[in-house]
Amino acid sequence: MSRSPKNDGKNRHKRSSHKNSKTSSRSHDWLYGRHAVLAALTNTDRQIDLLHVTSNTLKDFSDPAQSRGLSANLSTTSEISALLPPGAVHQGIAAKVRPLKEVSLDELPYDRPVLVLDQVTDPHNVGAILRSAAVFNASAIIMTRRNSPPLTGVLGKSACGALEHVDVIFVGNLSQTLKELGKIGFWKIGLDGDAQNPLEVSAPGVSKNTPIALVLGAEDKGMRRLTIEQCDETCHITTKGQLASLNVSNAAAVALHIISR
Amino acid sequence: MSRSPKNDGKNRHKRSSHKNSKTSSRSHDWLYGRHAVLAALTNTDRQIDLLHVTSNTLKDFSDPAQSRGLSANLSTTSEISALLPPGAVHQGIAAKVRPLKEVSLDELPYDRPVLVLDQVTDPHNVGAILRSAAVFNASAIIMTRRNSPPLTGVLGKSACGALEHVDVIFVGNLSQTLKELGKIGFWKIGLDGDAQNPLEVSAPGVSKNTPIALVLGAEDKGMRRLTIEQCDETCHITTKGQLASLNVSNAAAVALHIISR
Repeated sequence: MSRSPKNDGKNRHKRSSHKNSKTSSRSHDWLYGRHAVLAALTNTDRQIDLLHVTSNTLKDFSDPAQSRGLSANLSTTSEISALLPPGAVHQGIAAKVRPLKEVSLDELPYDRPVLVLDQVTDPHNVGAILRSAAVFNASAIIMTRRNSPPLTGVLGKSACGALEHVDVIFVGNLSQTLKELGKIGFWKIGLDGDAQNPLEVSAPGVSKNTPIALVLGAEDKGMRRLTIEQCDETCHITTKGQLASLNVSNAAAVALHIISR
Repeated sequence: MSRSPKNDGKNRHKRSSHKNSKTSSRSHDWLYGRHAVLAALTNTDRQIDLLHVTSNTLKDFSDPAQSRGLSANLSTTSEISALLPPGAVHQGIAAKVRPLKEVSLDELPYDRPVLVLDQVTDPHNVGAILRSAAVFNASAIIMTRRNSPPLTGVLGKSACGALEHVDVIFVGNLSQTLKELGKIGFWKIGLDGDAQNPLEVSAPGVSKNTPIALVLGAEDKGMRRLTIEQCDETCHITTKGQLASLNVSNAAAVALHIISR
């Protein structure tokens, strides 16, 4: 398998416009919560159609909104709640946004890890994974277009602004995508509690400069067979307690910390 | 500060009855979800008053229920939903349970870490932290009695059975408790993104056998001043991405993994 990268990506500007990028077919939708909306306001590649904010919250958002040329709609807490799904913890601010442009696999930078999620469906978990990805410098999260939560709402709130820093790539066939990641030089590690090798010990042949794709399956179900077959190796996180399995977002955070060392 | 433990706890039976233990004043309540209820059924120290289960779910629970002498109430999904808070994802099973007995600080084993939570209120987060604590062999989680979520419902579901493996100690005054933990030999590390020292590098003087109390503050607010003052040191988790702060349960998981190495 070739380990030479097709591009090193080191100078690629995050979220720059580019040929070949696809705009997600998902319709525009709502981001809410202070961190999520502030990050969207400061991302010039994020198109924002509407901004609703309470008078209490306005002072922290009027400058970033103005610098975008956006006029905020002063609203009450319950008016904002009425725009959102029941129970949304919006903290007095919500923005109707358009999806960000998607990058393609061969635009992925070569010096940062990527995460591949095999049917992780809980938006809290995917949001927290995005946040950890942004903290540990992963460039992108790859998910199947089916069986993945929308990139707004609960997911956006849990991501705490990470949606503006980490690319999300939706694909039709994860197994095919893993094959392509291998071709462009990524070493694919599937996380599996039953695997023999500990993630803490690098595989022989994986150098410091080998880009890593970390593959995680859904809670309980784990990775699908065709997903595992496309991994270069499977590894477990070393544990020693009475429960064996971490919450999937916690497993992602620990794994990202390990491979970033 | 003395580092000698008052007990080594190595032979203490988990959840054994003991003098001086206090029964929590919280009234009995509901655990739901397959992992949470199965773990409760197999914990002989957990008193269970009622068990409701759907016919589809019964087959996986009839043996553990029978061995407890419990007769399951066959119920429909919506009958179980009606017993629980709105939106509870109960997976066809719910158990009305009594709180477990609390241990006291000087019963903590000396060879396992403990976690101290300073006003972490989100039950999903506290549940996920309990789960990580069980995975990385922490013996207990210490929280303030005020500003902490109840040990049932959403927290129990997120904990995935960890409530039966990790002691939870509620205290009135966290600062005072940290002082006592120091007296019985624990080295108290506060987790703080702005701290100078990385958690990955042990403090001089902390040996492999020093028991560690890991202290975490609430999201956004962090630890309170009086809490920080009682820590022996504050440390950060080494990161290199565009966001600085992990979700609190992810921070706990990464920190537990680091100190378990």
